[in-house]
Amino acid sequence: MADGAGALGADAPGAGGDGAADGRIEGLLELDLDRSRRRGAPEAVLCDAKSVEQVAAIAGEYARLAAAGREDLGPVLFTRADEARAAVVLEALPGALHDPAARLLAWPAEPPAETGGLVIVACAGTSDLPAAREAELTARYLGRPTRLIADIGIAGLHRLVGRLPELREAACVVVAAGMDGALPTVVAGQISAPVVALPTSVGYGVASGGVTAALTMLSACAPGIGVVNIDNGYGAGHLAAQIARWAPAPEE
Amino acid sequence: MADGAGALGADAPGAGGDGAADGRIEGLLELDLDRSRRRGAPEAVLCDAKSVEQVAAIAGEYARLAAAGREDLGPVLFTRADEARAAVVLEALPGALHDPAARLLAWPAEPPAETGGLVIVACAGTSDLPAAREAELTARYLGRPTRLIADIGIAGLHRLVGRLPELREAACVVVAAGMDGALPTVVAGQISAPVVALPTSVGYGVASGGVTAALTMLSACAPGIGVVNIDNGYGAGHLAAQIARWAPAPEE
Amino acid sequence: MADGAGALGADAPGAGGDGAADGRIEGLLELDLDRSRRRGAPEAVLCDAKSVEQVAAIAGEYARLAAAGREDLGPVLFTRADEARAAVVLEALPGALHDPAARLLAWPAEPPAETGGLVIVACAGTSDLPAAREAELTARYLGRPTRLIADIGIAGLHRLVGRLPELREAACVVVAAGMDGALPTVVAGQISAPVVALPTSVGYGVASGGVTAALTMLSACAPGIGVVNIDNGYGAGHLAAQIARWAPAPEE
Amino acid sequence: MADGAGALGADAPGAGGDGAADGRIEGLLELDLDRSRRRGAPEAVLCDAKSVEQVAAIAGEYARLAAAGREDLGPVLFTRADEARAAVVLEALPGALHDPAARLLAWPAEPPAETGGLVIVACAGTSDLPAAREAELTARYLGRPTRLIADIGIAGLHRLVGRLPELREAACVVVAAGMDGALPTVVAGQISAPVVALPTSVGYGVASGGVTAALTMLSACAPGIGVVNIDNGYGAGHLAAQIARWAPAPEE
Amino acid sequence: MADGAGALGADAPGAGGDGAADGRIEGLLELDLDRSRRRGAPEAVLCDAKSVEQVAAIAGEYARLAAAGREDLGPVLFTRADEARAAVVLEALPGALHDPAARLLAWPAEPPAETGGLVIVACAGTSDLPAAREAELTARYLGRPTRLIADIGIAGLHRLVGRLPELREAACVVVAAGMDGALPTVVAGQISAPVVALPTSVGYGVASGGVTAALTMLSACAPGIGVVNIDNGYGAGHLAAQIARWAPAPEE
Amino acid sequence: MADGAGALGADAPGAGGDGAADGRIEGLLELDLDRSRRRGAPEAVLCDAKSVEQVAAIAGEYARLAAAGREDLGPVLFTRADEARAAVVLEALPGALHDPAARLLAWPAEPPAETGGLVIVACAGTSDLPAAREAELTARYLGRPTRLIADIGIAGLHRLVGRLPELREAACVVVAAGMDGALPTVVAGQISAPVVALPTSVGYGVASGGVTAALTMLSACAPGIGVVNIDNGYGAGHLAAQIARWAPAPEE
Amino acid sequence: MADGAGALGADAPGAGGDGAADGRIEGLLELDLDRSRRRGAPEAVLCDAKSVEQVAAIAGEYARLAAAGREDLGPVLFTRADEARAAVVLEALPGALHDPAARLLAWPAEPPAETGGLVIVACAGTSDLPAAREAELTARYLGRPTRLIADIGIAGLHRLVGRLPELREAACVVVAAGMDGALPTVVAGQISAPVVALPTSVGYGVASGGVTAALTMLSACAPGIGVVNIDNGYGAGHLAAQIARWAPAPEE
Amino acid sequence: MADGAGALGADAPGAGGDGAADGRIEGLLELDLDRSRRRGAPEAVLCDAKSVEQVAAIAGEYARLAAAGREDLGPVLFTRADEARAAVVLEALPGALHDPAARLLAWPAEPPAETGGLVIVACAGTSDLPAAREAELTARYLGRPTRLIADIGIAGLHRLVGRLPELREAACVVVAAGMDGALPTVVAGQISAPVVALPTSVGYGVASGGVTAALTMLSACAPGIGVVNIDNGYGAGHLAAQIARWAPAPEE
Repeated sequence: MADGAGALGADAPGAGGDGAADGRIEGLLELDLDRSRRRGAPEAVLCDAKSVEQVAAIAGEYARLAAAGREDLGPVLFTRADEARAAVVLEALPGALHDPAARLLAWPAEPPAETGGLVIVACAGTSDLPAAREAELTARYLGRPTRLIADIGIAGLHRLVGRLPELREAACVVVAAGMDGALPTVVAGQISAPVVALPTSVGYGVASGGVTAALTMLSACAPGIGVVNIDNGYGAGHLAAQIARWAPAPEE
Repeated sequence: MADGAGALGADAPGAGGDGAADGRIEGLLELDLDRSRRRGAPEAVLCDAKSVEQVAAIAGEYARLAAAGREDLGPVLFTRADEARAAVVLEALPGALHDPAARLLAWPAEPPAETGGLVIVACAGTSDLPAAREAELTARYLGRPTRLIADIGIAGLHRLVGRLPELREAACVVVAAGMDGALPTVVAGQISAPVVALPTSVGYGVASGGVTAALTMLSACAPGIGVVNIDNGYGAGHLAAQIARWAPAPEE
Repeated sequence: MADGAGALGADAPGAGGDGAADGRIEGLLELDLDRSRRRGAPEAVLCDAKSVEQVAAIAGEYARLAAAGREDLGPVLFTRADEARAAVVLEALPGALHDPAARLLAWPAEPPAETGGLVIVACAGTSDLPAAREAELTARYLGRPTRLIADIGIAGLHRLVGRLPELREAACVVVAAGMDGALPTVVAGQISAPVVALPTSVGYGVASGGVTAALTMLSACAPGIGVVNIDNGYGAGHLAAQIARWAPAPEE
Repeated sequence: MADGAGALGADAPGAGGDGAADGRIEGLLELDLDRSRRRGAPEAVLCDAKSVEQVAAIAGEYARLAAAGREDLGPVLFTRADEARAAVVLEALPGALHDPAARLLAWPAEPPAETGGLVIVACAGTSDLPAAREAELTARYLGRPTRLIADIGIAGLHRLVGRLPELREAACVVVAAGMDGALPTVVAGQISAPVVALPTSVGYGVASGGVTAALTMLSACAPGIGVVNIDNGYGAGHLAAQIARWAPAPEE
Repeated sequence: MADGAGALGADAPGAGGDGAADGRIEGLLELDLDRSRRRGAPEAVLCDAKSVEQVAAIAGEYARLAAAGREDLGPVLFTRADEARAAVVLEALPGALHDPAARLLAWPAEPPAETGGLVIVACAGTSDLPAAREAELTARYLGRPTRLIADIGIAGLHRLVGRLPELREAACVVVAAGMDGALPTVVAGQISAPVVALPTSVGYGVASGGVTAALTMLSACAPGIGVVNIDNGYGAGHLAAQIARWAPAPEE
Repeated sequence: MADGAGALGADAPGAGGDGAADGRIEGLLELDLDRSRRRGAPEAVLCDAKSVEQVAAIAGEYARLAAAGREDLGPVLFTRADEARAAVVLEALPGALHDPAARLLAWPAEPPAETGGLVIVACAGTSDLPAAREAELTARYLGRPTRLIADIGIAGLHRLVGRLPELREAACVVVAAGMDGALPTVVAGQISAPVVALPTSVGYGVASGGVTAALTMLSACAPGIGVVNIDNGYGAGHLAAQIARWAPAPEE
Repeated sequence: MADGAGALGADAPGAGGDGAADGRIEGLLELDLDRSRRRGAPEAVLCDAKSVEQVAAIAGEYARLAAAGREDLGPVLFTRADEARAAVVLEALPGALHDPAARLLAWPAEPPAETGGLVIVACAGTSDLPAAREAELTARYLGRPTRLIADIGIAGLHRLVGRLPELREAACVVVAAGMDGALPTVVAGQISAPVVALPTSVGYGVASGGVTAALTMLSACAPGIGVVNIDNGYGAGHLAAQIARWAPAPEE
Repeated sequence: MADGAGALGADAPGAGGDGAADGRIEGLLELDLDRSRRRGAPEAVLCDAKSVEQVAAIAGEYARLAAAGREDLGPVLFTRADEARAAVVLEALPGALHDPAARLLAWPAEPPAETGGLVIVACAGTSDLPAAREAELTARYLGRPTRLIADIGIAGLHRLVGRLPELREAACVVVAAGMDGALPTVVAGQISAPVVALPTSVGYGVASGGVTAALTMLSACAPGIGVVNIDNGYGAGHLAAQIARWAPAPEE
């Protein structure tokens, strides 16, 4: 067999053979059911750029596959789901967890057993909580132990300093911040674990939309920081879970 | 007399009368000799956008006015002066101080007696020193006691924390930083004096040119920060000197 | 005791000890109750990026602390509060002042005794009034005498010139402007006090959102100007109050 | 004859017939010799984006056409010409005027008789002089009486106010400014003639390259301003000459 | 009397004396009643950045001044007025003209007698009509004869070519265009009158908001074009009226 | 006859003669009825920047011309039509096809006979389907055989690789993608037919609005890609139809 | 064999087997020798981002392969080659053609036999010639008949109109333009063949670097235009050659 | 002892006590000698924003500390060092390794023993090699086993596919790419290890400077990617080394 075929996973359902029909809704989409095998984590469904009908069709396909006995599906995350999209997911997959603040659904609701190191998600202000919570849940559903620390913005440094011993327990810290986005630099400069910098769209004026925060994070004068897209809590949590995968479990 | 006239300083040399010719080089420029009376500080000459000949003409005009006995001229600052421009200034005004690192000349070289509160200029890294030094000298020549603190970037927070007691003695702190520009927020959050944020063009990638630092400073989540243009050490020092003008002198 | 601890205010409520619980709502936020001691002014609550529930929780915490006899709390400002957020603040803190035009609440309603120099807030057009009023109220609640001058845009220079004598009485002038943002330069060029430049989002076309005004102000060819974020009336008033702190009281 | 043809000037040399060869250098360029008839002013040659050889070829073609007795050619302007390009123009057209500060050559050197109203070119600082001078010469070679006023930046308002009576004599005022670009608004607000706003690339930090000045001018809160490209002194002078064409001649 | 005073029009109502109260609503705004004398055209009221109450107060002040017999007020233009703002203007000034498509009101409704040359407003597509109509009405109320030509976008060149003879009758042509904004260049290249380029916010993708059109117009390779802000039909019409002021009346 | 006239199609309806009235609604618009002859495809009507009334007037004019027996009109496409605009088109032209997902109407509903090569429209995700469908219908109504392939984003490469044999059958492939916009590069690198890259506004954070996707496509390291405006499905389909015009018909 | 492997061309030299070493210089690069088979055209070498040593190594590898008798290599293009890089290419491949204006080398020098339709490259001004020439040569070395038309900028429309009959002979027209980048729209609106829009970096002020031209072209209100990166003459010529591949040969 | 002090490492040399003088060059800089203890890796010296004298002073201080017997210093990295800066480093620290392509020096030259998982650095093109090499060396000097894979750009997918088995051995993959920056998405979609995306400034036109690549990487539609600043090979390698720290060693 040629290298190319093997490298792309020719034996996986999506790559050919009679399993190919699973997950493909012709003219609409093709679920990446091979993803767990290839990447160690199942696919997530980004809901806000899809119509309610499309989200319902996807959730329905997962329900159909589960009913057909397929076992390698979950946990599946539905991200950026508003009320209407969450409703159709819950209708198709009644056992899903729904966290409205994080706009996230997870199916099945029970997260996997905890493995790897601790992922801490810290955020600069209360307004950053939705993205931070999305990151924490994602890391949790990818199997990591997680913790959330709110409101340690650098304008009052003692709040951050008081939390440093705790932050140093983590195998990876996700730092969510809007406005000036300066918190990840300060945190990264004080710990040895990698920092995932998560810019949020919180802010106004030149900070509006989060681009300033993203630029600040990319420009951080401390190394050890990887930046994700603005408000991409899912991506931040996913990366943090991958990073913490081999680390020792947190001490009790 | 109409309000309008008085408000604009109708008695000043530039506003009419036979003193109007002082400082005007027709077709080239008109020095703002009224500035000291109006603003409490004399004009500065921004050299880098002028030709060497223009700078020489301006320096020569000051020399001519001084020779003619005019006493309200100085101290005059020549900013952003490269080697060639500095040379023609020194030729026309041999008594001037020249600080090559800050690319600044001051004439006469002796700064005024110190009045008002202490101005501290702090910078994040060694690369910010030229702008920081320009700010310090400007504040010094506007009559304030000054001090420079180098290299307290937030990637190593203990350096900053160790300097906080000193920073708290200042009536105004100028904070120069490039890259992510996060230092002014952290400093402002720890002191009660106003902070003048001075973004520098130090940086590369998305931080190149200093725009990211400027955006970060404008977006600072701590209040008490006024931002000036990138690399505008003169403007930062000028503003700081104005701010510290009424504050008590620093304790010995 | 180590320097680091003292520098960060180890004795303050938030830094440790049994007072640490005050102001912390676990998993949501941690009020910066130490701020008055550290910075000379209490914290403000930025409402528009918080949910109504979060704002209510914060106002409730202040009410609880006041009921418990804590005396170093105020005045607290709630900024950028729409109708819904203002309502929950007023419910929790019935004695608060509410200025709908400035979208600001202050608690308690009585401002502190006036100290320091006069802060004048001037604006270019009527559309800049909300930001200007927020700046004025902030400076007033930080203890300065204040005054507001409306509609002195530079398109009709006589309006500005007629107000120059008045502007020269101030220890600090906040200048709010949208569109081309040119007013701060003109004002700064005529007075000796520092100018806080407050860009507003008033404008359309290339001026929309206020970025052009902010750029103009950063580029001002007159020194003596510190720029804050677009529409950041709170920050402008805060900085002006700090600047005017040591200046002599205005003459009657 | 169809409208389309007449509208485009089918009788003109470039539109067909045996005169078509005039001005065309095959594979390189085609001079717009019809321009005088169509637009009331001859073509200009933008030199800085052309190679020295291309500029020499163009100047040579004009020399050839003149030698062949063609009389509707001039005056031709060569703009943005550095030393090398100016040299080849002067070699081919020895009678040309060369203004190195404006980087402009005009051939023949004698400007046309003055007609129409006065064009005043005013600039904010000495650094704006090259663009200002290019504008003035262009208007002059299109037949207008012109005058140049230097260094009336708004940081010292009395300089501008002292020149207002003079500015009010113009049929059109070109205002060149870099940095914050605020001068055109102030001037336009005080006079009844149209203002051509000419942003220059003079500036540093956020003002570098002239984009801030251009944005400010487009956002001007006073009407009566038309903006041209950054450093486009030729375009500004051309437009001003067109505007002043029908106005009465200035009083002696 | 000092020059400064006279230059700024010290005798005008707004400059001092007991007439100063006219047009000033303290703490809100100060009408520029001197504008007609100074600029040759009365002030316009930009409505969309003002509250309905503010617009009503301004219209009311004009009604009050008219009732008091003041005669130098009009015609006054209220621009960018939505339904609600138009309603309060019409309530205070019942005799005003209201053009909903242009979102403009003019009071009194009768335009001045026509003087000067013809102003033609041409637009690229039907979507540009609102801005084009605002420009036309403004020029008309400043006293010029006007005409509107719709839909001559350059994608079908014959439409433009067929209109060239008509365009050549104008003393000034306003060209409104969104999307690629290329029409002003093509028009300017074919006529001898000045072109006022009016970018509109019509467009999507990279053209959305009109910035691309504005950049294209500033970059136009044909001289003779002055650009105004995006959607600034008022400014375009004002400038065109000033330009056409001295030109001969159009032939019948 | 002069070249200019013939080149612009002087015999066409819009260019003069008594046929000129067809398609012109004075003061509103002028349909480009000559377009079929000149460009090989009839005009399309971009609806979203027009008022409902304007769209109704245009559809009505087409109905009138058809009723008058004119035969060279269609098929006409109405693009970016929301519910209200679609309704008035269907009222005037009841025989039109309406595809709500693509927001497109085509009249008459029957597409022309298929000629030329196969156009495949591929999209990265389900969210890109509206733009992709608009492209496919446009190419179909310009006479090409078409096919749509959904959801072959590069995050799961096997989905793309599995479709390569099919993609290689096309004479032109339109690739629609938002977010990072990387799919066109990958596709172009694997096939010999030209790729039309269609960036979509699907995305959030730095990808929001589609500018990042457009920049990525312009920067593609594989040649053979032509980019159209963001969400310009019509333009993409039009270009693809032109490109595939001469290619052999797809094999059965 | 799995689909994946075949789709990626498992039999090609680079995909495995003992031919894999051809074209790979370990740790430096891997030539895409499979490209001719896969894409119908051989690889090009972008020289300006490579060191002289790297370019020499690549040219040497081609020489080595040719010497070893491999026959499917050419023609290879070396693009953006300055003097130094051109020299090392010519040293390794003495038979190459070198066009310094286009900064391009082609090896072997003899272009393939002409097939397909005519590619015309038109440019707005003489300054666009280097990019235009690069496009023409690329199309020529991909086997198309080509022609170059210079200097038909839209500021003088008759030049363009006079060339329309010629432009209509092409199967594809590449239009190169800097500054406002408006020429492609005008051309596309007059012909039925696809237009490849090639923005150039020619321009200054807001047009500097070519971004304005690129935006204009993406925003073109005429369909039938595919845009490539700024100054990407190679990409434009490559795309044009692909487009013209199936078209009938030009008439004699 | 208060938490604050311990959290910031009060026992470290820089935080107080008589060890504070180590590493401080007053008025110039303060080395972060505490960094190894705090972050697990020593400080790096960014050379290109420092003067040659400053770099020499820093290298000299390290030499002095080493001579004084201090043992916790290295390995120290000097990054972005040109010829002149490299020379002064080598003079002060003769035992340093110097890699000119990566512009990096490491002292002492011997890297630490390998621990943790494999770090692979892959790059899209030969032009990305300098940044890629800087990343690889940084990871190596932080103690990881490393490997470099060059030239697997996605325009020729078989090159990447052929390398997938190798890429899947890594605990972390750094992917360097300029131009469209699409490679990290494709790689991340095929492997389970985290990807550090390193945009490079390689590119021209809209890709010039690397911003497009950075935006693409932030927008990646595959999760598992952390982005660093443009050309920040040091930061990428540092982050990768942290990520791979706990992973199992690569198999032989």
